[in-house]
Amino acid sequence: MEKTKLSNIKYNKDGLVPVLVQEDSTNEILMFAYSNQEAIKLTLEKKLAHFWSRSRNELWLKGHTSGNYLKIKQVLIDCDNDSLVYKVDLNENKACHTGSKTCFYKELTYE
Amino acid sequence: MEKTKLSNIKYNKDGLVPVLVQEDSTNEILMFAYSNQEAIKLTLEKKLAHFWSRSRNELWLKGHTSGNYLKIKQVLIDCDNDSLVYKVDLNENKACHTGSKTCFYKELTYE
Repeated sequence: MEKTKLSNIKYNKDGLVPVLVQEDSTNEILMFAYSNQEAIKLTLEKKLAHFWSRSRNELWLKGHTSGNYLKIKQVLIDCDNDSLVYKVDLNENKACHTGSKTCFYKELTYE
Repeated sequence: MEKTKLSNIKYNKDGLVPVLVQEDSTNEILMFAYSNQEAIKLTLEKKLAHFWSRSRNELWLKGHTSGNYLKIKQVLIDCDNDSLVYKVDLNENKACHTGSKTCFYKELTYE
């Protein structure tokens, strides 16, 4: 697989990039969040998913309070170098703060 | 599966929501983009993935120029009602403008 270095990431004007979180073993999409440069560095170093919380305006180690850490298997970057996929091991944990495995447990309907 | 209506979507200040595009049959993540209300309505009505192009500042029917339409199987919305997953049939098409099946064909490395 082609490789891209950390220094090639193109951040949004606010210094963030979108991160899609996917279970490595099933390809299930678990959640969506944003990361800044520091969060991405820590994610690669520690092999645990870090994000930037836009609501709390702070670095966020997923699982720090809940215990639901997301162990990193691989990080992918898209063709334009402006969005990421964290491929993670969820084990028996839940990714969603509601207690669901995934944040995407609802279907969108027209009416 | 729990249902959520179109009117419950929480848009960003710029009127957009993040959209994660996933192949329905394999769960492979294909691309990441943004949609506005009109694009989402058209996506549900026409069963074809529509987005809002931030670079061209216009509604974007994926495949309109390339022929690589993404047929919608299901649209999911997250716990916070502020991001979507389009589950699509790609058939033999390519989702990425580079000619790759997916936009996420590169691994991010520390150095």
